[in-house]
Amino acid sequence: MTIATDPLLAAIPASRPDVVRVARLPAGFVAAGTTAGIKASGRPDFALVASDGDPVPVAAVFTPNRFAAAPVRLSAANLRATGGTADTRGYARAVISTSGSANAATGPVGDEDQASIGSAVATALDCRPSEVLHLSTGIIGARLPVDLVTAAIDRVARDELRAEDAAFAAAAEALRTTDSVTKAASATVDAPGVDGGTVRITVTGIAKGVGMIHPRMATMLSIVLTDATASPATLHAILRRAAATTWDQLSVDGDTSTNDTVYLLASGRAGAASADTDADARAALAAAVEAVARDLARQQARDGEGATALVTCQVTGAADDADARAVARAVISSSLVKAAVHGKDANWGRIAGAAGNALVTESAILEAAGLSPSEAATKAGRPAHVDPATLRIAIAGNLAYDGPAGGPQPIDKAAARDAMDAEEVLIRLDLGLGDGTGEAFGCPLTEAYVRENSEYTT
Amino acid sequence: MTIATDPLLAAIPASRPDVVRVARLPAGFVAAGTTAGIKASGRPDFALVASDGDPVPVAAVFTPNRFAAAPVRLSAANLRATGGTADTRGYARAVISTSGSANAATGPVGDEDQASIGSAVATALDCRPSEVLHLSTGIIGARLPVDLVTAAIDRVARDELRAEDAAFAAAAEALRTTDSVTKAASATVDAPGVDGGTVRITVTGIAKGVGMIHPRMATMLSIVLTDATASPATLHAILRRAAATTWDQLSVDGDTSTNDTVYLLASGRAGAASADTDADARAALAAAVEAVARDLARQQARDGEGATALVTCQVTGAADDADARAVARAVISSSLVKAAVHGKDANWGRIAGAAGNALVTESAILEAAGLSPSEAATKAGRPAHVDPATLRIAIAGNLAYDGPAGGPQPIDKAAARDAMDAEEVLIRLDLGLGDGTGEAFGCPLTEAYVRENSEYTT
Repeated sequence: MTIATDPLLAAIPASRPDVVRVARLPAGFVAAGTTAGIKASGRPDFALVASDGDPVPVAAVFTPNRFAAAPVRLSAANLRATGGTADTRGYARAVISTSGSANAATGPVGDEDQASIGSAVATALDCRPSEVLHLSTGIIGARLPVDLVTAAIDRVARDELRAEDAAFAAAAEALRTTDSVTKAASATVDAPGVDGGTVRITVTGIAKGVGMIHPRMATMLSIVLTDATASPATLHAILRRAAATTWDQLSVDGDTSTNDTVYLLASGRAGAASADTDADARAALAAAVEAVARDLARQQARDGEGATALVTCQVTGAADDADARAVARAVISSSLVKAAVHGKDANWGRIAGAAGNALVTESAILEAAGLSPSEAATKAGRPAHVDPATLRIAIAGNLAYDGPAGGPQPIDKAAARDAMDAEEVLIRLDLGLGDGTGEAFGCPLTEAYVRENSEYTT
Repeated sequence: MTIATDPLLAAIPASRPDVVRVARLPAGFVAAGTTAGIKASGRPDFALVASDGDPVPVAAVFTPNRFAAAPVRLSAANLRATGGTADTRGYARAVISTSGSANAATGPVGDEDQASIGSAVATALDCRPSEVLHLSTGIIGARLPVDLVTAAIDRVARDELRAEDAAFAAAAEALRTTDSVTKAASATVDAPGVDGGTVRITVTGIAKGVGMIHPRMATMLSIVLTDATASPATLHAILRRAAATTWDQLSVDGDTSTNDTVYLLASGRAGAASADTDADARAALAAAVEAVARDLARQQARDGEGATALVTCQVTGAADDADARAVARAVISSSLVKAAVHGKDANWGRIAGAAGNALVTESAILEAAGLSPSEAATKAGRPAHVDPATLRIAIAGNLAYDGPAGGPQPIDKAAARDAMDAEEVLIRLDLGLGDGTGEAFGCPLTEAYVRENSEYTT
């Protein structure tokens, strides 16, 4: 029996480079996390992360939601002011995060509140308001308690910012809302030094979500710091490409929040060659950013609302990578597949049905990945190529469907059920059409999800 | 207080022309529904609908799922054989429907099974196998019991086909799987007669789903008959446009099955002028088909898996109709909105968030509606235009968000909860941007949906 050596049945590969779930603070940054009093619970709700000197290059990915919240719109405007060309890259001295109120759909007064907070940070750190970036999460339509936040800013800027891992861990803790665990991931890799030789660069991300918050709008926030050297434009290209294969492939319930934001800041303090001009430095930084983003996305899927497991779908043999990502996304987004995983049912029919329904809709992502707008447009909103005759599906290591061998395969249902009773359920599809690969991350659909999202009033 | 006259707060408008939920059989057709024995339960599982003479013009809309089942692929090939140009229109003598096995993912043997059934119908009715169209729903990956089906074909063709409403109602009953009610809708309208004057044309549709079947793949099947006169090409244009505003706007759980199919057959027996050449005849037929399709879609949403109510989202003031439909679809497809409706929570934040995330992905639909492929492509996979400053949202008659008036509105939560405790929950959005309108139909997300889709093994 050679079936055990089928790559379709292998375990999930680890991220490369290695990632550790520790909030290692890269050189050149200071951080703090504390309780400002926004949340009635008294839990940490305020984080401040800053460069320890001048503003540093930064790239951002913001929610595409047209109902973007005040912190998102202000940060985009600030990046345009400091970067000069785009609202997704520029220079920043600090990132401030508040939780308890999303400051979304609050109208002009919400914009004024967020601007007041930015001014307070600028005053406390002696920088320009446009050099302050914002994150916020919580109730929609409620105002931020600006007095409490500005009091915390003064206190933290004066006494609490530290260049210590523990301070960055405290910031990660304050980013949490009702996440069941604090989420951090860090990778350290070799890169060419600016003066020759080899140096070590560190990339560390902290993140929240998609745990529940009141009103339980799934929100994805992350701050990624590095001591590598790169311009805003290079950072943005690296971050956008990493997000396309990681956060853009994450789904808990198909809803994209009004506040989703990722920032990547680079201090340049490791003494590495610039990723703008040195291909090896760029490759090292890109690999580390993608590994960190992937690990954070996996932590977020595992901690999804009502989630009892992480569901990973890996697709190989696609016509191209965009097709593979679309198929993987369709599988982990399917309510029927998610419910089947909850029931520990190796239901390949639902997986095949979801795969056959996959749409490639990522034109913006493809553009960012280097395709021309016209090339990207030809791929937007098109069905992904899937052929039942060449498709193969394995669920938790069990080959369930083999198109070239005639279709459905006999499966030991009890064994499959046992294999699916795990922290991570791996669904693999080989489309048998080309060399495209992709993966996506989700979670089961449970009664707890429904309860948590229906049994309350805003 | 003038707020009660705000059109945003009005009740849901009825379909025009009037629709009755009766299986009135249009002239020129015969029908039967019976038990072939496919289902172990012994419930009706076999329907046959046929023209009472020559083959008649027919149009079809098939699932876009790349994993389309054998009955879908065979029917498309048959239409290509009889219509000469496309696989979505041609001529048909009969439609045969079986339930209990979807005949999906059954490989070459499944294709042979379906072809055998078509041959048996052709023999029994003395027509060509290519003039037989197929519908099937049920377990994926299981073979149809061909012997049982062919025995039923012989018996029904010989003894049971009737030109009676009761026979068409029996066919509707046999289309059901575990639908909680039989679904039929009929409209009768005036149309110009072929010899001058006015005649009455009837359009009647029967449908199943999206009730549960084993393995509970949500399946949408419908047969629509009319005694109006039209060519296959005209029928297809009318059906595609009607589907774009009705069935394409229906979502129970976001999964599109491998078997979804709608057929529209026209006997020409009412003596109406041809919809191909007479604009009034075409308008009358198109209006009746759309009204029937809309009513069937509403019945299907109301009977969705675990559904406790019908959720209708109506959008006005959009930049164009495609945008309005995309926003309506995004709202009724959002798990968070669906869970909020289940909880009777007037959660406008989730509705706004879903609307702000709407993607226009209906290029094929837009093409069918008359846009050129390049015009359609420019609209595919693009965000819909939504502006928080002009957006207004009403939930079950309660104005919850008013962008021009500053945003969130005070709402009587107890009154809103009472208003949402209804058979139909109406969510209205006025985007305040243009004249585009659209609607979509869905159902709440309930614990019962999760239970029904996780607590079983295929």
